[in-house]
Amino acid sequence: MDVPERHLVVCVWMALCCLWAGVSMPDPTYREELMKMEASMQTGGEVVLNEKEKILNSRLLQMKQKEVMRADFPPAMHFFKARDLIKNSALFRLLQKLPKGAALHLHDFSITDVEWLVKNATYRPHLYMCTTNTHIIQFIFSSQMPEPVPRCSPWVLLEKLRAMTANVTELDHSIMKNLTIFTELDPNVLYPTQSVIWKRFEQSFVAVLGLVTYAPVFRDYYYQGLSEFYADNVMYLELRGMLPEIYELDGSTHDMAWTIKTYQEVTRQFTADHPDFFGARIIFTMHRSVNSTVMAQAVKKAMKFKKDFPDFMAGFDLVGHEDVGRPLWYFRNELSLPSDEGLSLPFFFHAGETNLEGSEVDQNLLDALLFNTSRIGHGFALLRHPVAKELSRKRGVAVEICPISNQVLKLVDDLRNHPGAVLMAEGHPLVISSDDPAMFGASGLSYDFYEAFVGFGGLRSNLGTLKALAMNSIKYSSLPAQQRDKALAMWQKRWDKFISENTLISGFYPEFIF
Amino acid sequence: MDVPERHLVVCVWMALCCLWAGVSMPDPTYREELMKMEASMQTGGEVVLNEKEKILNSRLLQMKQKEVMRADFPPAMHFFKARDLIKNSALFRLLQKLPKGAALHLHDFSITDVEWLVKNATYRPHLYMCTTNTHIIQFIFSSQMPEPVPRCSPWVLLEKLRAMTANVTELDHSIMKNLTIFTELDPNVLYPTQSVIWKRFEQSFVAVLGLVTYAPVFRDYYYQGLSEFYADNVMYLELRGMLPEIYELDGSTHDMAWTIKTYQEVTRQFTADHPDFFGARIIFTMHRSVNSTVMAQAVKKAMKFKKDFPDFMAGFDLVGHEDVGRPLWYFRNELSLPSDEGLSLPFFFHAGETNLEGSEVDQNLLDALLFNTSRIGHGFALLRHPVAKELSRKRGVAVEICPISNQVLKLVDDLRNHPGAVLMAEGHPLVISSDDPAMFGASGLSYDFYEAFVGFGGLRSNLGTLKALAMNSIKYSSLPAQQRDKALAMWQKRWDKFISENTLISGFYPEFIF
Repeated sequence: MDVPERHLVVCVWMALCCLWAGVSMPDPTYREELMKMEASMQTGGEVVLNEKEKILNSRLLQMKQKEVMRADFPPAMHFFKARDLIKNSALFRLLQKLPKGAALHLHDFSITDVEWLVKNATYRPHLYMCTTNTHIIQFIFSSQMPEPVPRCSPWVLLEKLRAMTANVTELDHSIMKNLTIFTELDPNVLYPTQSVIWKRFEQSFVAVLGLVTYAPVFRDYYYQGLSEFYADNVMYLELRGMLPEIYELDGSTHDMAWTIKTYQEVTRQFTADHPDFFGARIIFTMHRSVNSTVMAQAVKKAMKFKKDFPDFMAGFDLVGHEDVGRPLWYFRNELSLPSDEGLSLPFFFHAGETNLEGSEVDQNLLDALLFNTSRIGHGFALLRHPVAKELSRKRGVAVEICPISNQVLKLVDDLRNHPGAVLMAEGHPLVISSDDPAMFGASGLSYDFYEAFVGFGGLRSNLGTLKALAMNSIKYSSLPAQQRDKALAMWQKRWDKFISENTLISGFYPEFIF
Repeated sequence: MDVPERHLVVCVWMALCCLWAGVSMPDPTYREELMKMEASMQTGGEVVLNEKEKILNSRLLQMKQKEVMRADFPPAMHFFKARDLIKNSALFRLLQKLPKGAALHLHDFSITDVEWLVKNATYRPHLYMCTTNTHIIQFIFSSQMPEPVPRCSPWVLLEKLRAMTANVTELDHSIMKNLTIFTELDPNVLYPTQSVIWKRFEQSFVAVLGLVTYAPVFRDYYYQGLSEFYADNVMYLELRGMLPEIYELDGSTHDMAWTIKTYQEVTRQFTADHPDFFGARIIFTMHRSVNSTVMAQAVKKAMKFKKDFPDFMAGFDLVGHEDVGRPLWYFRNELSLPSDEGLSLPFFFHAGETNLEGSEVDQNLLDALLFNTSRIGHGFALLRHPVAKELSRKRGVAVEICPISNQVLKLVDDLRNHPGAVLMAEGHPLVISSDDPAMFGASGLSYDFYEAFVGFGGLRSNLGTLKALAMNSIKYSSLPAQQRDKALAMWQKRWDKFISENTLISGFYPEFIF
């Protein structure tokens, strides 16, 4: 019996005894005990805080109280409207400094601020741009005029276009708007349905792709992404990557192995430059819209990569809008290839990123578990699948919860109604991640930590919750045991430093002045 | 171990065995079994349909499929906008005919269509109206000019006002708008926050109160309410009532006992007129904003009423906006009076109609259960309270789920994210009710049944679910065992008739033509 379950049995037993005893008024001591036990079942409810942590905890709870009291309660608002409110809160500034451990659910081409893409990548020479007939821009770096692309305007050299444009700021702003789905307009008007926003979301990835698959940008984009997560006090990433062809200025391209190797090299470089950063691993992904043949090739590639890069390649996953894609069960033969051949290929399946209950796609959660997935990506529908939920709990298969992503992609409005709130209350194995922060106008992990801490946990979650979330992110990573211990020790050191630095006399720290 | 729990253990055991056996591909038979078992855990999942029911079930599922396929999916929309879409669906017409059993969570002055109030009640003679300085109208029937009311315009005789008004339809429409919170404007603009809508909601009750507390209207309003529920194929009601003073034309008033007696008489009359209607019972309620002295008096009154009207008075409850009202624990001494005196006063507490997690009010769920509540009103926050949830399950304390009410009062937008979806998936003891249908522009139970059936159940719930919901409403009623058996037998008769009538050759029934 796991800890929350044991608690539940004790609590219910106590409560039933209390009632059967026929006490006229519920005994306040029993009541207190039940409340404490319920509180201890939540994520981090078992964490015992030391004296310094207790000091910080009381400040943290004051900060949260302040957030909960505001009329414009950020977790109840669309993130695009809430972002600046969150950013300007003292609580957010503290969460940024908090060592959050690992980000385990991220897509590789949405980890870096789009402003960097515009200000840095698009200012490099030899960049051509065209506009499709659906008003989406596309990019290519090329030493000569590139071949025309169907349904796109003639290519123009961006350098030239900028030289001819009176208002370059406006041009850059309009480029930026193509690289993210963040908007200052009303998101519910601009993106009225899930299919509209998914279409726009995938279009933005296409725009980004032309920039980030250019070899020099590819390296720098990734390094910059690591820097942004590092600055947000995240120390380890597991990146889902489709590993597209990376190209050079002369049009030549590299194979996937090159891409993995480059990721590995840049990671090593970054870790050498920042010794308190732990590293990164890659989860190779394939789009769920492909046919069985393409999927079989992808699984075989993944198996080969896992063999060739055992320490860097974490495993395999399927990506794309679940509702319209093929369900996992459709690919049951292809996904069985590794075990058929007696090879180990860990799976990290997206599953249950849907609110279509009872459809074929809605079986992905159970199937992911039957295929022995190491974690569940999103698991938004998990509460509606009690068998899958219990399996995930019993086997310690953590759910990667991405609150902002699920809200922006229109699964839920008020984040207090996100299933993560329930999973956290029950102490279900889970981690918090940010999915595609750059696409959503977020960055790092802190915005999602804010939403989970304030929106899911209500007034009940505390510093113990945050500590448990950070520790979970290492515990449920794909790292082998020894590596995990090393990462945990590194995290503990950073945590202790964070606690010490933030429990000095409060007057020194402007964020503690209310 | 209850049924869903036993299922869960078997399922997880099967799945773990299947995984431990090291099968390379999940065995399709096991998978099928797990899916079936999960489906059988849901509300009604255990119901075995007979041949005729199976025929109707397949038609029902076709109708649901049609609803799920529409671009404007009603459960994802605000009810005010979805109402007409629902009303015009074949599924809704079938749900109206379905014998739904009992409505267990209703407030007495919001059971009758406001159009009846306007067209019938306000056309009676001697009705005066005034408008408050916050533009809310108030009514009083009086044989002479009533005393002026503070912060209200001078009284005008409505009969006179109508005679002087060019556009009576418009006047009637504007009166109607005061008696309900339903609006054709954008509800999220008109009611941006919970406190705004709760204020408006309570103001509408004040406007209604002047009409329905006039003795002749009081009787007719109740009779009309029963008729509307009867027409919607509901056969028994449990009405929460604050039992305000009922007045006569000369200004004289009746005591609460008179009100209960009148409710009882009208119920008897209605049952005599409609022998296949089972009846009604009253739950006496007090506003949660009162002080301890008033609450103590109310509890004592409730005890007396329970003694004087043992067959008609079901018990006691507290009403009003939970977030701003006093928590149950505040009234612990008053709520202990019955058991202190060795008397039985069943409680039917509203609890967890909130999304303020971790606040004092958020303890109402646990406290309701510790005070041995017979049912839980709303229980919206139940999922976030695993101990309270398990207690409610173990002790068979049903949750009264009112989907439209929770959506309109801004606890959740998309009803697929309503906790009822999870409770139904888990087979938690629950009933569906409509709370204040007239206030929300709904009527009877069918709109809420639609939302629960289509919004909560996804494609998985079926005729068995509806049958179980109807049977639950009798099982979890306050009726003594013998009465319950009688009601169940009456319901079964109506159910069999419904199945027979709706499995004739489909061509006869326009709603079966797709």
